[in-house]
Amino acid sequence: MHRTHTCGELRISDINTTVTLSGWLQKSRDLGGMTFIDLRDRYGITQLAFNMETNAALCEQARKCGREFVLKITGKVIERSSKNLNILTGEIEIEVTEFEILNESQTPPFTIEDNTDGGDDIRMKYRYLDIRRKPVRDNLLLRHKMSQQTRIFLDAQEFTEVETPVLIKSTPEGARDFVVPSRMNQGQFYALPQSPQTFKQLLMVAGMDRYYQIVKCFRDEDLRADRQPEFTQIDCEMSFVEQEDILNMFEGLVKHLFKNVKGIDIDSLPRMTFADAAKYYGSDKPDTRFDMKFVELKSVETLHATSLIPAGFPVFDNADLVVGICAKGYAEYTRKQLDELTEFVKRPQIGATGLVYARVNADGSVKSSVDKFYNEATLKLWAAAMNAAPGDLILLMAGQTDKTRKALCELRLEMGTRMGLRNPNVYACLWVLDFPLLEFNEEENRWFAMHHPFTSPKPEDIALMNEGKFGQVRANAYDMVVNGVEVGGGSIRIFDKTLQANMFDVLGFTKEEAQAQFGFLMNAFEYGAPPHGGIAFGFDRLCSLFGGENSIRDFIAFPKNNSGRDVMIDAPSEIDNKQLNELGIDVRK
Amino acid sequence: MHRTHTCGELRISDINTTVTLSGWLQKSRDLGGMTFIDLRDRYGITQLAFNMETNAALCEQARKCGREFVLKITGKVIERSSKNLNILTGEIEIEVTEFEILNESQTPPFTIEDNTDGGDDIRMKYRYLDIRRKPVRDNLLLRHKMSQQTRIFLDAQEFTEVETPVLIKSTPEGARDFVVPSRMNQGQFYALPQSPQTFKQLLMVAGMDRYYQIVKCFRDEDLRADRQPEFTQIDCEMSFVEQEDILNMFEGLVKHLFKNVKGIDIDSLPRMTFADAAKYYGSDKPDTRFDMKFVELKSVETLHATSLIPAGFPVFDNADLVVGICAKGYAEYTRKQLDELTEFVKRPQIGATGLVYARVNADGSVKSSVDKFYNEATLKLWAAAMNAAPGDLILLMAGQTDKTRKALCELRLEMGTRMGLRNPNVYACLWVLDFPLLEFNEEENRWFAMHHPFTSPKPEDIALMNEGKFGQVRANAYDMVVNGVEVGGGSIRIFDKTLQANMFDVLGFTKEEAQAQFGFLMNAFEYGAPPHGGIAFGFDRLCSLFGGENSIRDFIAFPKNNSGRDVMIDAPSEIDNKQLNELGIDVRK
Repeated sequence: MHRTHTCGELRISDINTTVTLSGWLQKSRDLGGMTFIDLRDRYGITQLAFNMETNAALCEQARKCGREFVLKITGKVIERSSKNLNILTGEIEIEVTEFEILNESQTPPFTIEDNTDGGDDIRMKYRYLDIRRKPVRDNLLLRHKMSQQTRIFLDAQEFTEVETPVLIKSTPEGARDFVVPSRMNQGQFYALPQSPQTFKQLLMVAGMDRYYQIVKCFRDEDLRADRQPEFTQIDCEMSFVEQEDILNMFEGLVKHLFKNVKGIDIDSLPRMTFADAAKYYGSDKPDTRFDMKFVELKSVETLHATSLIPAGFPVFDNADLVVGICAKGYAEYTRKQLDELTEFVKRPQIGATGLVYARVNADGSVKSSVDKFYNEATLKLWAAAMNAAPGDLILLMAGQTDKTRKALCELRLEMGTRMGLRNPNVYACLWVLDFPLLEFNEEENRWFAMHHPFTSPKPEDIALMNEGKFGQVRANAYDMVVNGVEVGGGSIRIFDKTLQANMFDVLGFTKEEAQAQFGFLMNAFEYGAPPHGGIAFGFDRLCSLFGGENSIRDFIAFPKNNSGRDVMIDAPSEIDNKQLNELGIDVRK
Repeated sequence: MHRTHTCGELRISDINTTVTLSGWLQKSRDLGGMTFIDLRDRYGITQLAFNMETNAALCEQARKCGREFVLKITGKVIERSSKNLNILTGEIEIEVTEFEILNESQTPPFTIEDNTDGGDDIRMKYRYLDIRRKPVRDNLLLRHKMSQQTRIFLDAQEFTEVETPVLIKSTPEGARDFVVPSRMNQGQFYALPQSPQTFKQLLMVAGMDRYYQIVKCFRDEDLRADRQPEFTQIDCEMSFVEQEDILNMFEGLVKHLFKNVKGIDIDSLPRMTFADAAKYYGSDKPDTRFDMKFVELKSVETLHATSLIPAGFPVFDNADLVVGICAKGYAEYTRKQLDELTEFVKRPQIGATGLVYARVNADGSVKSSVDKFYNEATLKLWAAAMNAAPGDLILLMAGQTDKTRKALCELRLEMGTRMGLRNPNVYACLWVLDFPLLEFNEEENRWFAMHHPFTSPKPEDIALMNEGKFGQVRANAYDMVVNGVEVGGGSIRIFDKTLQANMFDVLGFTKEEAQAQFGFLMNAFEYGAPPHGGIAFGFDRLCSLFGGENSIRDFIAFPKNNSGRDVMIDAPSEIDNKQLNELGIDVRK
């Protein structure tokens, strides 16, 4: 072994011990008679001292070493004269007596510091240097701890980790598959799994009872920021359960992770229906770190009721929905700031046509951007409806229901950020429940499964399904949302072959198509499938949330860029003709 | 939840408790007034009792259920009149009061019993039923325990699990890659990793210090029995280590696994050089559960020395090697049995030309199949050399050194099996060390790395390398062998860029080829690579060894057959033209 200790473990209690350390030269300081080197490894930094008077040769040698040289030294642990109490090894240093350069280093293309001067592109190209930086290394260590704690929890609950295959079968339903040409079965292809969904259901049919896997999944989609072609899921399935059992179990997992990874106690997760999430937050993944719920001044349901919106302002008159939020204490927002918000909601990504505001003044009077259409009494009714007190700012949007909700959701999040209500180190978790089973796709003029074709309708809604009221059928499906991010989702599955066949029928599959694509699962259901359900968590995203960061990229050791390229190894790349010949495929010119 | 308990947990202490169980109907017996059902789940079997007198309706219902029906029952735990002490739940049964069929089942195509009537093909097609059988399920549970315990050990040693990418770059060196056409980078391909070798080395350059991963790897090779296109490795790498550190660490892992999975204490692993393994066992993975070492009567080294083989028998006269084993106590082997052995070694897979035997009789006289060529005195010298006592059988083979050793290795294993010396529940582990660094390939007329191009030569042999004596250079490489199976192998890596460039040179790479294929690793070595080394274990194989079985297939949930097909899901399969168009590839007709 090239060391007796790591660079993170020596303390004042080790004084006078002779030790050998190995690591990288983090930085070096010449102070005339002395040279100090900070030696770094994964575990920490230890200061090395070289004295010109007592050992000039060694000191000269040390002075020749540049940043990131790999050094091995032996010496005595001594107490520092000038201590650094910010680091655990800060009370000691090593009086070096033996010195060896294990390897030299070119000057790295960016600084190996917490705040590096390297941009994203160069950091990714030299990822092996980037990972030497503490923040990136800490993210990978956090990820390890997350998977450890996930396994500890699930193992204790009798879940069995089963590896499902990576080379599987392509299914046109859903997102695009990556495919793998088969050499031994020319003209045929494997697909990489988008998730182990069918396999975990087969494991339930197989009686494995409780399954999990921390597993790579693959989707060949056009990459948005922060979407990776390969990503990792915590994939789980349980038999003989109902929705309530799943919610309790995985609420337990998330509490365990917060407790054991972050030291945070999480209360029981609040539950919200999909309908309420839409109504009060304009989203199926509301950020509940802050309240600022939507208040509807006019909606499709209240159109003919005594209205808070007397006729006069065409935008509101013609709207299906007039809905707003109340920014507590923000009445002093300037015209400029309000104009910024208007510009924000008008951006093409949001696409709103405008924004109405009303300030509640200290005297209780209300001043709005639509004063010419509404009188003070109406404005006061609004303020009352929105629970707005003197000093508060009301922001209103109007239009078609879904679009308006989506736009106001963005505005709410923007206000939350501006108001400092979205601290990444504060966590608000919840379950969103009662998703619709089916959604209609206008383009393809057919119903699609909102979750996937194996999701079970709520038993009490099966009648609606039989009546053809597909849009009203609710699913036994659930999402876990943390800080406005969907971290996991799942459902109780259909385990009855007749209901499953009926579902494929609603989705427009012919019997033959259903058999060709999912025959093995439907056949399996002929042999005694148990009631079952499960959930999958996006592990990369969960790690970034626990790390208090928005980007998942730095929680993946070797991520790909937005074109799906690994710029470090330069993949994908062209392959030999010999390989193409063996596979029996041609690349189109 | 559909149950209060599992089918494996009720005991005599639970008597009078009212419980709800769910599971599969394993078997059902009608005894006139009573019906008994064995209800099965992953955890065990519980007997259900239905009484015609007390509840005829329920009993009738139960009698209508076939094998593998999914049942949910409620009832009272009562003491059995006729106990089955072979199973943990054998003292109790459930007096059923409520009964529900959760799902029906067709009659399964084979029996769900430990010894099924289903052949391999049908078991694979209905793998979800096969896994319901206890032996297969137990294998998967064993696998889970193996990975759990592996992680527990490595986590405690500060190893960090890091996920390396699955979509990487194809490299022509080594086995054939599976490739994945890129849609976003048309004409280019990703490759699936044969191992995370270069990534784990980059993680060492990145300062991660101790890395592991239980990870899927892929090789597109023609499948021999028991080779899978996707397989799992325990992949490990450490920094600032020498060979001795690695051997100690992973000896620790294997001891931990034997202790915690099998309850077996393993001694320190014996070590054997590659040269000795060849000389004494004719293999680089000797089965050391039994001794029966090779004894050389004549070898290239002893050709001109006083010989045990006086001239006269052309086969021995012309042989580079005359070598034998002594089967203790097997002198009574009949002529027929000896002929069988001769046929065995003459099979094309072994390819020997013949077999010479000699029996040591009770009176010390020796009777051989070559009596007409050698006198009794010579035969007695052989017996002495081979430490053969009265009652022992000597088996000799002769010819070219490597071929003869390989053939005798097969004969030794066959004799070991016949003599009952290869009990799958007895474990003999060892390290094989000092592998050659390079081996010459006559066909391609160049040197190949025996391990891989990153393996370090022994420092003391670098001089030989510089002198061009490539065949004599030993590597810092090691294999772990258990019961004649290579379960793991690894090496200390080259971490010096000059030596690495030199190595590529010896392997016949031009600078450009080396740069094109391994440039990212060689570049990384410019920035301070630490000394490092590692090992990888074949996890499927390790599990089958611990399970006491030869085949790995039943330790994999969903294996592929010898044509690389998954017969359950029918993969690989043809894909849509739409998919081919998006990828810009054509399948040759």
